[in-house]
Amino acid sequence: MVQLFPYQQLFSFAKNIFLHIGCSDANAETATKVLLSADLRGVDSHGIARLSGYVRLWEVKRINANPVIRVVHETPSTAVIDGDKGLGLVVAPVAMQVAIDKAKNVGTGWVSVKNSNHFGIAGCHAMMALENDMIGIAMTNASALVAPTFSVERLLGTNPIAVAIPAGNELPFVADFATTTAANGKLEILQRKNLDTPDGWVQTKSGEPSNRAGEVKDGGALLPLGSDKEGGSHKGYMLGSIVDIFSGVLSGANYGPWVPPFPAYIPMPENLPGEGIGHFFGAMRIDAFRPAADFKLHMDKWIQRFRSAKTVKGATGVIIPGDPERDMERERMADGIPLLSAVIDDLNLLGKKYGLKIE
Amino acid sequence: MVQLFPYQQLFSFAKNIFLHIGCSDANAETATKVLLSADLRGVDSHGIARLSGYVRLWEVKRINANPVIRVVHETPSTAVIDGDKGLGLVVAPVAMQVAIDKAKNVGTGWVSVKNSNHFGIAGCHAMMALENDMIGIAMTNASALVAPTFSVERLLGTNPIAVAIPAGNELPFVADFATTTAANGKLEILQRKNLDTPDGWVQTKSGEPSNRAGEVKDGGALLPLGSDKEGGSHKGYMLGSIVDIFSGVLSGANYGPWVPPFPAYIPMPENLPGEGIGHFFGAMRIDAFRPAADFKLHMDKWIQRFRSAKTVKGATGVIIPGDPERDMERERMADGIPLLSAVIDDLNLLGKKYGLKIE
Repeated sequence: MVQLFPYQQLFSFAKNIFLHIGCSDANAETATKVLLSADLRGVDSHGIARLSGYVRLWEVKRINANPVIRVVHETPSTAVIDGDKGLGLVVAPVAMQVAIDKAKNVGTGWVSVKNSNHFGIAGCHAMMALENDMIGIAMTNASALVAPTFSVERLLGTNPIAVAIPAGNELPFVADFATTTAANGKLEILQRKNLDTPDGWVQTKSGEPSNRAGEVKDGGALLPLGSDKEGGSHKGYMLGSIVDIFSGVLSGANYGPWVPPFPAYIPMPENLPGEGIGHFFGAMRIDAFRPAADFKLHMDKWIQRFRSAKTVKGATGVIIPGDPERDMERERMADGIPLLSAVIDDLNLLGKKYGLKIE
Repeated sequence: MVQLFPYQQLFSFAKNIFLHIGCSDANAETATKVLLSADLRGVDSHGIARLSGYVRLWEVKRINANPVIRVVHETPSTAVIDGDKGLGLVVAPVAMQVAIDKAKNVGTGWVSVKNSNHFGIAGCHAMMALENDMIGIAMTNASALVAPTFSVERLLGTNPIAVAIPAGNELPFVADFATTTAANGKLEILQRKNLDTPDGWVQTKSGEPSNRAGEVKDGGALLPLGSDKEGGSHKGYMLGSIVDIFSGVLSGANYGPWVPPFPAYIPMPENLPGEGIGHFFGAMRIDAFRPAADFKLHMDKWIQRFRSAKTVKGATGVIIPGDPERDMERERMADGIPLLSAVIDDLNLLGKKYGLKIE
């Protein structure tokens, strides 16, 4: 049911697809790199499995393969960028670079983006800051699948937050998480295996607790981090809202229930208050606060202390954010990226349109 | 068991206490205002109930009543502030003002603080941004009571995050939450009432799940938002860690298990890597992104849409962050602030030292 593909093979295939829909060579290269970073890091739901979805958005003219991405408003430490309906995979690195350049000049840079599309995994963009000795932040809103505490209606996306922080001898701290109890990709995995969800992941379309992995596809909702009021779901709801407002309301993108859906066959919401999907990026130069060497020394100490903590029975260790994804990346670079047969079929079908083969 | 006190009466009492330990009139005024904003907003654990605790920290010379609070490093959009062991209640507003002033100049301002103490409620500081048409952010680390996912050891504080966002005709969005499933204050309330906690709030000192409200006092730990791995506690752990790093590692304060405890009788951790407690503040000028009037129009739409969402059975409405605290503030300003007899006794004992009476 699963077949391994070398990274380079998938890279060539995906890049060729992006070239065929009209991306420039540079943009096709960037989009592929960002897309496949999800596969490498183990976030399979955001990787090459989505490639045909991007193409379908291009087919219905919701994605512009040759966007003119430009700053439409700015101050020394901020900018709003209009993504011109470009692939989020291409718009996001441009926006993150603007944040980094502003941080070089005045210490920090903060960029809100409108008129974009799905940007892949947040962590990939936040990590661009690391090589500049900066802390990187990336977030995005997404189409509404999440019911706030007490709501039956789906008003928020899984709205992820990523924060990448440099260290010294230790590897960087890289947090990248949906503001829901579980990301939608986990439901898809359970559904494929015909398994129930743990308590507190989803509710039915009438707002009752449920353990059905297919609930969201049937009009139910994902739940905010915390699951229910007693578990602190109002905090997950607040986090998801902050991501939505920073990404959507601050930039002039859509927000809340108006964020455009990823599947091209789902009709667009009506009376849109903004343009496209919104993202938000931040870069903070470490030495805008203290000498980078000092900071890194203490980050190493922080990481070592947490990693060496005494663990509960049955656990092998306290995990430093970023470690599991790095392990996965090393493994998949060496052994190949596993694709499900359904994904392979979908990619072959896509390839046929353009005379390309994945295998 | 509960008695109501007019705000002004508690204000005079607390301000006089701060004056008696040597605060300037301006600092005593600020400290009292910040302290009592917790009582008004219903966060009783962070209000006047803590007054005697601050005094005890001053008695053991861990709080300096006359700090020289100064910027020790800065760029156009950032600063590090040394709180000179001052009351966090006084240091925090100074730091937030520096963030606001920087935002006036370059669009945003970001201030990390070291050598401070407990700063009261985070929301109060974040809200300073609102009157300047800015988004305000405040966070702080705190002494370690929280076990990261898989850890038996307590390595993080309840590390709250507050984000205040202006609206137009609607009242502002004000989120203010601990990055744990439940704040420590909620455990104290349950303990007083001899009630158990819901599942997923605490674990024993050997890392087993528990429902005992007294668990944390007996060496157990609070759990990160999400409660356990299945519920997404690694996300709460990541959030708490980000707050710790922004507040502690970026500024040169203590972090992780080395953050100084609030109760003066608990010995300080050994081999401190930094100075005092750390905070982190941010201010983002709305019109550094888009015209403030446009933004507010859309924030109103956002708030109205969420507030009018269809609710689950038994719920009265989807709550907009900030609403419950505003309702509480209105009520308590009108009817008085309820204090438990134990708190009244403690305040009377404190007053006796300085010839002051609360009643």
